[in-house]
Amino acid sequence: MTTNTLNRQSGITDKLEKECINTIRFLAVDGVQKANSGHPGMPMEASELAYVLWTRAMKYNPGNPDWPNRDRFVLSAGHGSMLLYAMLHLTGYALSLDALKEFRQLDSPTPGHPEYGCAPGVETTTGPLGQGFATGVGMAMAERFLASRFNRPDFPLVDHFIYALVSDGDMMEGLSSEAASMAGDLGLGKLIYIYLDNKITIEGTTGITFTEDVARRFEAYNWQVQRVDGYDLPHIHDALKNARQESSRPSLIIARTHIAWGSPNKQDTPDAHGAPLGEEEVLLTKENCGWPEEPTFLVPKEVLSVFRQALDRGDGLENEWLTLYSGYQKKHPDLAQEWQAMHKAPDASKWHGALPHFAVDQGNIATRKASGQVLAAVKPFLPGLVGGSADLAPSNNTYLKEFGEFKEDGGPNIRFGIREHAMGAILNGMALSKALIPYGGTFLVFSDYMRPAIRLAALMGLPVIYVFTHDSIGLGEDGPTHQPIEHLASLRAIPNMTVVRPADAEETVEAWGLALSNQNGPCALILSRQGLPVIDRSKYEPAHGLQKGAYILADSKDGEPDLILMATGAEVHLIIGAHEQLTARGVKVRMVNIPSWERFEAQPEAYRHRVFPPHIPLRIAVEAGSPLGWERFTGSKGAIMGMNRFGASAPAKDLFRVFDFTVDAVVQKAEALLG
Amino acid sequence: MTTNTLNRQSGITDKLEKECINTIRFLAVDGVQKANSGHPGMPMEASELAYVLWTRAMKYNPGNPDWPNRDRFVLSAGHGSMLLYAMLHLTGYALSLDALKEFRQLDSPTPGHPEYGCAPGVETTTGPLGQGFATGVGMAMAERFLASRFNRPDFPLVDHFIYALVSDGDMMEGLSSEAASMAGDLGLGKLIYIYLDNKITIEGTTGITFTEDVARRFEAYNWQVQRVDGYDLPHIHDALKNARQESSRPSLIIARTHIAWGSPNKQDTPDAHGAPLGEEEVLLTKENCGWPEEPTFLVPKEVLSVFRQALDRGDGLENEWLTLYSGYQKKHPDLAQEWQAMHKAPDASKWHGALPHFAVDQGNIATRKASGQVLAAVKPFLPGLVGGSADLAPSNNTYLKEFGEFKEDGGPNIRFGIREHAMGAILNGMALSKALIPYGGTFLVFSDYMRPAIRLAALMGLPVIYVFTHDSIGLGEDGPTHQPIEHLASLRAIPNMTVVRPADAEETVEAWGLALSNQNGPCALILSRQGLPVIDRSKYEPAHGLQKGAYILADSKDGEPDLILMATGAEVHLIIGAHEQLTARGVKVRMVNIPSWERFEAQPEAYRHRVFPPHIPLRIAVEAGSPLGWERFTGSKGAIMGMNRFGASAPAKDLFRVFDFTVDAVVQKAEALLG
Repeated sequence: MTTNTLNRQSGITDKLEKECINTIRFLAVDGVQKANSGHPGMPMEASELAYVLWTRAMKYNPGNPDWPNRDRFVLSAGHGSMLLYAMLHLTGYALSLDALKEFRQLDSPTPGHPEYGCAPGVETTTGPLGQGFATGVGMAMAERFLASRFNRPDFPLVDHFIYALVSDGDMMEGLSSEAASMAGDLGLGKLIYIYLDNKITIEGTTGITFTEDVARRFEAYNWQVQRVDGYDLPHIHDALKNARQESSRPSLIIARTHIAWGSPNKQDTPDAHGAPLGEEEVLLTKENCGWPEEPTFLVPKEVLSVFRQALDRGDGLENEWLTLYSGYQKKHPDLAQEWQAMHKAPDASKWHGALPHFAVDQGNIATRKASGQVLAAVKPFLPGLVGGSADLAPSNNTYLKEFGEFKEDGGPNIRFGIREHAMGAILNGMALSKALIPYGGTFLVFSDYMRPAIRLAALMGLPVIYVFTHDSIGLGEDGPTHQPIEHLASLRAIPNMTVVRPADAEETVEAWGLALSNQNGPCALILSRQGLPVIDRSKYEPAHGLQKGAYILADSKDGEPDLILMATGAEVHLIIGAHEQLTARGVKVRMVNIPSWERFEAQPEAYRHRVFPPHIPLRIAVEAGSPLGWERFTGSKGAIMGMNRFGASAPAKDLFRVFDFTVDAVVQKAEALLG
Repeated sequence: MTTNTLNRQSGITDKLEKECINTIRFLAVDGVQKANSGHPGMPMEASELAYVLWTRAMKYNPGNPDWPNRDRFVLSAGHGSMLLYAMLHLTGYALSLDALKEFRQLDSPTPGHPEYGCAPGVETTTGPLGQGFATGVGMAMAERFLASRFNRPDFPLVDHFIYALVSDGDMMEGLSSEAASMAGDLGLGKLIYIYLDNKITIEGTTGITFTEDVARRFEAYNWQVQRVDGYDLPHIHDALKNARQESSRPSLIIARTHIAWGSPNKQDTPDAHGAPLGEEEVLLTKENCGWPEEPTFLVPKEVLSVFRQALDRGDGLENEWLTLYSGYQKKHPDLAQEWQAMHKAPDASKWHGALPHFAVDQGNIATRKASGQVLAAVKPFLPGLVGGSADLAPSNNTYLKEFGEFKEDGGPNIRFGIREHAMGAILNGMALSKALIPYGGTFLVFSDYMRPAIRLAALMGLPVIYVFTHDSIGLGEDGPTHQPIEHLASLRAIPNMTVVRPADAEETVEAWGLALSNQNGPCALILSRQGLPVIDRSKYEPAHGLQKGAYILADSKDGEPDLILMATGAEVHLIIGAHEQLTARGVKVRMVNIPSWERFEAQPEAYRHRVFPPHIPLRIAVEAGSPLGWERFTGSKGAIMGMNRFGASAPAKDLFRVFDFTVDAVVQKAEALLG
């Protein structure tokens, strides 16, 4: 048996095959019906395709869902989750039949859409359309990156495919267009996507709005395109074989399918998309397909034994690979060691000594520039660090000059093009390899273009790093379309997201350290366009305080402060100036730098109260962004100096002046507050 | 002269034409150089195209930038703003040469990217890539909608084109893919886009990541595709003529161009994209193009007189149209009246009487359903109301059953498909007609997909209405990918955005009233999936209080309240329950419903303090979303009952229970706070 061209297992008759397929179909039907909620149409439509994929195409080991060289399967049409759960259960993953009966119930491993971490074998969270499609492209890029780094003659350590089932919705989302264009440009031959061309969406037939020639579009992107009948098993099998043989282009298999296949009254109708068939139609469908009405969730013994061959087969495949890996370890011990290291959390001790440091006499340094220096310094110690920018590398300082290009030689420098959303999803796909530390850069304002992907990184707990530069009106002349206002607040609002806005070059070093050690969710570095002084740490507390999210940069010399000034990023320099002036005038002022709200809120209450003693009510927060949320720290009696409107096009110094981001304005506000 | 095929004006020699073009090119070069900031490459590249467009293709009247039947020009590659400003000045719009010298300076009408409202003739704000492309599609849809409603035999009242210059960046953004697919599906023949195929992006050549076959892709979308040399004037002229003659498909003219054309050292390099040429290169370029070094901002008299013919021509065109309109007024007085009415703010007195009302005995009604009823009720009185959903019409309740389909007969029901981002930008394009009131629906969670377009609606102050349903974990089984958490906070953070979350069906009526009367910015209606009781207004204050953003729903019976409970939307019903229980136990409780923060903050301080007296510190806010920002109303001693994490997949009632959104939980929190 060659692993890439599994043939029909011996002893399997057409009749048994049909039973296997009906088992898939009706597990989904019964699951949705029992939950009285869900999307039966898609699993019913794609049961044949799933059967061929899991029994005759994909390499996987249900006994070890983490086997690194498994093929990945992405259900981009995530609403068809019962299809995936049925396959995982049938092929022997640790997902019980009872779990299928608990579909969409509290704390079950079978949520409404596939969620990474809920059931073994779910490779990524899907549901928001287009995300699976583009995340799969990231998986294929991870595959190529790792293959390029580790494979050696006779040792194809990394050599697997990424399969996906994608829907009309995926095809319509611009995100998929961006990702498809990029996959075609990169010639990602390991990508094999099956498009369920069912002509039906929630509102009606695709004829109402989606009449483009999908095949031609994908050919334009440099994809191999094939068409199949989604119910013709040999035809599907052949198309998959062709797709695997095409190594220089991604493959799209357009499968003509029928939503709710087998349902006498709901097939080919939008009704079957998002609601259970209903008891009566379930019975009619079972009758129509020659399937017993009872019991529900029926898995005939002989069917199960067909599917469960996946366990032995998977074990064999993984053992083959382990043997390969053993040989590799002997022949290439250094690489094997690196492989192991990359699959663990990054070890800070390795690169800590290489970090750059910045001194006051270096003059003004933009934090985006300091960031570029940190990146260059740590990269040699972090082979899994890989990323780039959405065509703003010279501005984001994300390019690793000493390293190769991904497109040319599988190096770590990725050119995402002007495709922020695809970048976001691709970063997720790469992070899912559990071997890479992906980063992506753009202007902070354009984080909006990739928000749905950022949200999924947070939901999945992926260690993705965003390099968001040009973080305020300090961007200047490009004007309000390019000046972030609401973006810090909007990112802080996302659960499990860490936002860090360092105040100078040294804190940027700390911020990268924080990001690299943050393994359970994404981290956004918020960096300045404009040069900022390096804070004089002989006068102020060390930059390491950033790790706590907020820290007292300087306190009043004698006794309790009357006033607390707080700020983030560039605006910290305004409160430093104000602190000096006010102190000189005898005002007792504490100055708090608060680069990361999330980190600060994770500190013990004692620390938080030390920084912001509840009995000191006079407080001023300064941040050149939306004031939303700052009341959390300023309290009822404090003041917020923020941006309540969009910015303007002008040199940055003019903008800071007219929008009151000056030392004088802070001093005035302080004096007003102090009465 | 037929208005659609302007030929070269008589008496214009090749030499004069060349001077005209050089004038454009060097106004841009000098403008960017003087500002010492900006993007010279694109205007230099496209001067020939601009010349042909403005002198031989477009119908416009510089004397009246608001003439309704003008052709629209969209500079989707907004970074090339100096090109647009040069053309507006040269052709006689009220934009002085001095204004061009103030490029990118504070309060000048010539900001870094074209901003709607800053200079006459700027049809839309561009800069964030893809937005202009997709907004233009909305403009073409507005054209078709209005033409279909108003044109009569011999009276083509609405009959104009939408021209755009688009860049590689536009082509890469998924947003444009969505919009192009939709434009092709609708066969928007009035759309004529010129793609500047210059092979250069910020990071290098397009070869590094953008190698798809753009022509083939657009053919797949059902566009007419032509190729031209971007410096061959007759060729450009002919292609534009062909494009105008193609009435059943949008047109893409792929113009092979060269960034920074004419610059000896920067042409065809990324250097010319985002930085001034530099003094020396400016001189070399002028020499190379045979243009005097001095004076800068040179506009030769004979050149100006060529361009300024646009004034007479425009006047003639508009007068021709006014004559047509006069005849139309006589023949179709009702339609003419409607035309006038549609170009004014909607008159509430017209539809006020038709609004549905809801009574307590109607049982539970989801606010999304009430919204659908309001929409159906007001539509007959608002011919400009037009919209739809991104394939969720049955869930968003946005479909107008009594009206036609846009695709079929130019009716108001638009099928946006699963293209949220294009929907957002198209709504902007339609609103820019100043005749339409566009609305678009999707699940609140998917507002993320369209955020960049929402931001532009806010920045431009466009009266776009968003119908965002399924507004919390109340969505239930579809799970965390579909449950909004951070979205209310993220929308509230956008300047000039109004967010309204009504608490019941009656407030939904009020919310629509608010949205329809809100003419200076977008409004997001945040609506429940789940049924909600109609609040008993015999016991509680009238729903009209919603217009103030927040109002006291009920107060403590005797004396000052000890505690203020506040909530939005569905959670108002929890505080109603808690208010009852607490009142029964003798606690003095005020209950505040706060459906719109923005509206409330626009009230006089006296009113705000009446609702939230500063001396009453004990307050609880209840909202099933991110707590971010609620401290503004709860103060330092209050409590927020929100969602600090993602949701889960389960029936809604289970989720409300486990996440503490119950009357009991509110009562307990109140008792804890009261000590």
